[in-house]
Amino acid sequence: MKVAKFGGSSVASAEQIKKVAAIVTADSERKIIVVSAPGKRSSEDTKVTDLLITLGETYLQEGEAEAELQAVVARYEDIAKGLNLGQDIVATIEADLRERLAFDRNRPESLMDLIKASGEDNNAKLIAAYFQSIGLKATYLNPQDAGLLVSNEPGNAQVLPEAFEQLAKLRGSEEIIVFPGFFGYSEDGTLVTFPRGGSDITGSILAAGTKADLYENFTDVDSVFAANPNVVDNPVKIKKMTYREMRELSYAGFSVFHDEALIPAFRNRIPVCVKNTNNPSSSGTMIISEREYFLSPVIGIAADKGFATLYVRKYLMNREIGFGRRLLQILEDEGLSYEHIPSGIDDTSVILRQGQLTSAIEERIVDRIRKELAVDDVNIERDFAMVMIVGEGMHNTVGVSARATAALARANVNIEMINQGSSEVSLVLGIHSEDADRAVRELYHEFFSGADETIE
Amino acid sequence: MKVAKFGGSSVASAEQIKKVAAIVTADSERKIIVVSAPGKRSSEDTKVTDLLITLGETYLQEGEAEAELQAVVARYEDIAKGLNLGQDIVATIEADLRERLAFDRNRPESLMDLIKASGEDNNAKLIAAYFQSIGLKATYLNPQDAGLLVSNEPGNAQVLPEAFEQLAKLRGSEEIIVFPGFFGYSEDGTLVTFPRGGSDITGSILAAGTKADLYENFTDVDSVFAANPNVVDNPVKIKKMTYREMRELSYAGFSVFHDEALIPAFRNRIPVCVKNTNNPSSSGTMIISEREYFLSPVIGIAADKGFATLYVRKYLMNREIGFGRRLLQILEDEGLSYEHIPSGIDDTSVILRQGQLTSAIEERIVDRIRKELAVDDVNIERDFAMVMIVGEGMHNTVGVSARATAALARANVNIEMINQGSSEVSLVLGIHSEDADRAVRELYHEFFSGADETIE
Repeated sequence: MKVAKFGGSSVASAEQIKKVAAIVTADSERKIIVVSAPGKRSSEDTKVTDLLITLGETYLQEGEAEAELQAVVARYEDIAKGLNLGQDIVATIEADLRERLAFDRNRPESLMDLIKASGEDNNAKLIAAYFQSIGLKATYLNPQDAGLLVSNEPGNAQVLPEAFEQLAKLRGSEEIIVFPGFFGYSEDGTLVTFPRGGSDITGSILAAGTKADLYENFTDVDSVFAANPNVVDNPVKIKKMTYREMRELSYAGFSVFHDEALIPAFRNRIPVCVKNTNNPSSSGTMIISEREYFLSPVIGIAADKGFATLYVRKYLMNREIGFGRRLLQILEDEGLSYEHIPSGIDDTSVILRQGQLTSAIEERIVDRIRKELAVDDVNIERDFAMVMIVGEGMHNTVGVSARATAALARANVNIEMINQGSSEVSLVLGIHSEDADRAVRELYHEFFSGADETIE
Repeated sequence: MKVAKFGGSSVASAEQIKKVAAIVTADSERKIIVVSAPGKRSSEDTKVTDLLITLGETYLQEGEAEAELQAVVARYEDIAKGLNLGQDIVATIEADLRERLAFDRNRPESLMDLIKASGEDNNAKLIAAYFQSIGLKATYLNPQDAGLLVSNEPGNAQVLPEAFEQLAKLRGSEEIIVFPGFFGYSEDGTLVTFPRGGSDITGSILAAGTKADLYENFTDVDSVFAANPNVVDNPVKIKKMTYREMRELSYAGFSVFHDEALIPAFRNRIPVCVKNTNNPSSSGTMIISEREYFLSPVIGIAADKGFATLYVRKYLMNREIGFGRRLLQILEDEGLSYEHIPSGIDDTSVILRQGQLTSAIEERIVDRIRKELAVDDVNIERDFAMVMIVGEGMHNTVGVSARATAALARANVNIEMINQGSSEVSLVLGIHSEDADRAVRELYHEFFSGADETIE
């Protein structure tokens, strides 16, 4: 049994939903279908989720938002028309939206969750109606009826352990279940949405709960690539990769999955397959718990920009027990999370995402570090990029770091930081942001030139 | 004006002390002479300091230690005879030792400090007497009379700021001052010894206090070498290096100075020269605050063994604000200091000197980390070496890490950790201990083959 999740672009229009139906029909193992809200039909289009946010915010501010509501209904109407579904389903959706707006305005966060989640929920109803109209045995299932219990944190739901037991009952369903992504219900019956990557999370939870043989994640690319196609021309396709490789690459800007999304599948060792709704015959990328490696110790190269370095120097720092802990306490007091802590003997740096650092926070932490830790020097520099070289084969291969650093030297990229040694599957190189694309291209050339079109 | 410090082997015998006198005579700027206790005359010999520790411990345990006292007196008697000094000075030394033993036995730590410090103190008296006997205008000066005020922590004296003012008065002395290393006096008049490297500390404090033009540190090697001569054949001699380079190298096993010893000279920008008592015409190694670099960005390569790695893995660790701080708190609670913290996204390692880790401590920290931090995995591995590549030129030179990692790949050394990015003058590579010598030889070959006999 397979759980198949279809992302926003896969369900953005009647034409796309017909492709989804063809995919579902082609494999009788595809029993649980998780759907997103309709995404963009073109690069200028607006996602239904964004229309819904506008609707909710306007309604909260002005007490009515008829034009915004009609804009949402029009999207579904357009899709329903393209699928020859008639007006019933559109009327259902419109009534549903009006009912949501009638929710208690004194709970604005929950009201927003309710409105946002309607994008997935109504699309699931519409797609189930379409499946039925073409003769598939299919049914819409609401997450509350399915028992998808989550914590009551608006916009940041965490699945509760008892949800998995409830969802296990879906295994063996005769009918195809069409399930909306992005939300669950708290124990008191409140709808709560997941954080970023919400529909992927729903699919992952369902795959884990039903102990699916495979979790298929349909999107609009043929596979995960070994490097960003916007930076490297025609990067090779990755045929198989491990959860760990996926996680390290997604951290550094590979945007296929949000990193929390796969946890339930990962913990239950459910294989995940990334596939293309627009080219379903392509084999896609399999994400599994273990793999062998053959050609290259490296499977992917990613770079992420926007890092700052907090540099602290104090003579005999390494003898001062508690120094590092007190430094991290100061960051914690400001709610800052950090990424790496390269250290010398008398100095240490803390690398963190600079988006967190307002000038007020920066001033406070520099001031506290100077006063409380009596340091000789402290400063913050911005605009670093972290380049991540990832592969299961790296740990046991002598010379990966030699090849990587030589490639950067060839590209005349100064390495500001190297962090290797804890993760067995990655090497992190800190460089200046303006060197990032050049670095990725040269590293790609070093590790992938002469590789076939796909690697595993 | 120069402060010259002579180490244990330089003042171990009459023959050595004659060399010291010749050195002092050869340069009228050498006005303050700091001396250690007599060291070993051969590899089987016992240092006077060790004889004194035996004397003190025996006396504290048994209430008398006549044989041990005689062994100490015999060493001075032997030196005095070789210098044609007669019995007066020997009688003075013996009386001094007996007076020290009469100190309050209810203060055993201070009694031990008093006895240990007699090694330097009596040697200074003897050497001053010898200088006078050959017609030099010289005088012994006691640290209490000179105002060398320190904190009252037996075995771990820290110089007090007011000491420098007092010591400034020694500048301009007509006579050569012979000053015992290793100890000062607290404000209540108690003798207190310095931590490791004590005579170097005294010399450094005197150089700083008198604003000497140079602090000469006489030992038994011609210079500091670019690598350990026991590992690399005929390593090049370093002619000039900076304090920072010295500090990083001494950390990783370069044993010329204990790293705290140079702080007073360093803070006052007094140049330090390492010279050989047995070959004073060799120019030695100058340690200065800044230098230019020419041939190689690297000045020295050192390796130190005996490191352990504490590895911790937890999914989504990098999102958990406070995780690193709480991990370091657990180490701090056990009094452990750490060296490096390489980190991945879901894992982090803490590298620390394994001498600190008893099996009881190891068990407690692993247990606490597992329980309090709810990690997915935690373990400790031992027997790593840290290889340190040091040079002021490294930060601005593209490719040092590429050359270093390529050298290790050639030598088939797997790199377990790389830490670069905080110190501007070093690159640290973690490898298995058994690979350390091979790694240092190959790195030396990479950075120094073709170099002249000396580098600066």
